[in-house]
Amino acid sequence: MAGPFAVGIDLGGTNIKAALVSRTGGLVVDCSADTEAHFGPERILDNIARLVQDLARRSPEPVVGVGIGSPGTIDLARTTVLAPPNFPGWEKIHMGDALASRLGPLAGVVIVENDANAAALGSAHYGAGSAFESFIMVTLGTGVGGAIIYGRRIFRGASGGAGEIGHMTIDYEGPMARSGVAGAIEAYIGQRFLSRHARYRLMNRGDSAIHRMANYDLHGITPKMLHEAAVEGDEGAIEVLAWAGHKLGVVLGSAVNLLDIRKVIVGGGLSAAGDYILDSARRSIVRYVTPGLQEGIEILRETRGNEVGMLGAAHLVFEWLDDRKGQAAT
Amino acid sequence: MAGPFAVGIDLGGTNIKAALVSRTGGLVVDCSADTEAHFGPERILDNIARLVQDLARRSPEPVVGVGIGSPGTIDLARTTVLAPPNFPGWEKIHMGDALASRLGPLAGVVIVENDANAAALGSAHYGAGSAFESFIMVTLGTGVGGAIIYGRRIFRGASGGAGEIGHMTIDYEGPMARSGVAGAIEAYIGQRFLSRHARYRLMNRGDSAIHRMANYDLHGITPKMLHEAAVEGDEGAIEVLAWAGHKLGVVLGSAVNLLDIRKVIVGGGLSAAGDYILDSARRSIVRYVTPGLQEGIEILRETRGNEVGMLGAAHLVFEWLDDRKGQAAT
Repeated sequence: MAGPFAVGIDLGGTNIKAALVSRTGGLVVDCSADTEAHFGPERILDNIARLVQDLARRSPEPVVGVGIGSPGTIDLARTTVLAPPNFPGWEKIHMGDALASRLGPLAGVVIVENDANAAALGSAHYGAGSAFESFIMVTLGTGVGGAIIYGRRIFRGASGGAGEIGHMTIDYEGPMARSGVAGAIEAYIGQRFLSRHARYRLMNRGDSAIHRMANYDLHGITPKMLHEAAVEGDEGAIEVLAWAGHKLGVVLGSAVNLLDIRKVIVGGGLSAAGDYILDSARRSIVRYVTPGLQEGIEILRETRGNEVGMLGAAHLVFEWLDDRKGQAAT
Repeated sequence: MAGPFAVGIDLGGTNIKAALVSRTGGLVVDCSADTEAHFGPERILDNIARLVQDLARRSPEPVVGVGIGSPGTIDLARTTVLAPPNFPGWEKIHMGDALASRLGPLAGVVIVENDANAAALGSAHYGAGSAFESFIMVTLGTGVGGAIIYGRRIFRGASGGAGEIGHMTIDYEGPMARSGVAGAIEAYIGQRFLSRHARYRLMNRGDSAIHRMANYDLHGITPKMLHEAAVEGDEGAIEVLAWAGHKLGVVLGSAVNLLDIRKVIVGGGLSAAGDYILDSARRSIVRYVTPGLQEGIEILRETRGNEVGMLGAAHLVFEWLDDRKGQAAT
């Protein structure tokens, strides 16, 4: 397997996933560790460093660097992670310095990126997005994440925060999600909100298999249950997922109007509910796009699952190599 | 005044506006002609060619080229204009060929761009947008137009159609505008829709000055009347314009979430109603943006008025020069 090689890290609230990636061959080997966020940032950094060390040692040649997809706010220079939610005690950490002090020069260059952006970049080079120059990525999970790939690169916006699809409104007088934005799409299809909608909607439908699945307490409804019930042909569950897909189509339609990027890749846990949501989104998106931009609209599922996070993080390093060569040439 | 020089054309349904532009000095001289769209495309092209010829002759040195901001669909290569609305008989015209056949080499390189994009580029280099690397431009007139400037360049999307802010929805079950998109912002603040809203809202407010201004037939309400009445302190008119501004803020908030571009320049006829609309938009936009992206949001009026259309069109030629130099260097 030919180089160059880089390490890609997907830093999550529960796990840290890490992979050694070859530019030409993709994922070589991966491993993971508990994040142990409750022990504070020094412990998290130790855990990351240990994974990097393991993988760097297994690389056929020195790794060029480490890419990290992280929650929290990333600075424009892509070196520092600011206050990731659910990481107590983490204020502002320069990741390059943190790894250099633990590993010396072993880690090489260190580049940080927003986790949604890293996943989209992974899709662009190793996943479903590799078929397209440009696409919108939306991640359906606890929240609704998003990212924009334009010309196989992350579209970062003026300060690196672009792609917050989850906070786009579809009804200016609608319900509020965490961000305080009325009618934000997350307030409909974020996990908690979707489960609540399902509870209300299925409450008086005793025929739905969801009652049995949730042990007759609808507060326990999960998107996974909805998917399983839908697969069994449960009408109520199918309706709820189609309702969610319709809303998703609305917000994606708005994004297509603004960006003229007509390919959408859907990832994240809820994307497992697949076509029950996506077929509905495919029907509604077209109704929310101006006729001149409707041709060629597609909504696809990410095929590489969560791996795109690590792969995209590693690719940050390969992009950095390209940019350095480009600068040397001019 | 130093060169290089280019001609910028703002092709409208009623008038063709043209300017000789110096890269360093801006607008040198401008002129205009009736479009005469009803006589068909050949006549329109003759009219454009005559303006180009007049201006090229007045240039201190041969013009590098002609930039044209046009309605209709522009191809990705920026050479061809497809079916502009209200231009009967115009199917698909290659503008470079059309001008070369009329003027020979006099016109130089010919570059076409969507009129909203051209105006935004003009703002970026000669207008209110020149203070920013990146901004969203929204044009309030008969319709609601939009464009995105990113790194002082037009963000074109995958096929050149980006920036259709007017078709973004703010209420997925809202009223429909021309595009058929439910709740598209144009269905609230496009000229016809805003006038209708004003009619309904002021119908039973005999105290509003609008009744007198519209000769007691509220079907004749124009945005200009609303502005004049607001300046006189008319409560009803002020309320209507604030209502419009609120809606504008909603859709701009969605755009900021997606793009992380926090500066907005507002142009077009209705922008004359200025702060009656914009102050309201400034209050609402923040409520529709996720907290992490709220800092530094600004909504400003374009200060160069309609001139930005011609200026931006000419600037397409200067950009082309830069790109050619860039390619020669690598």
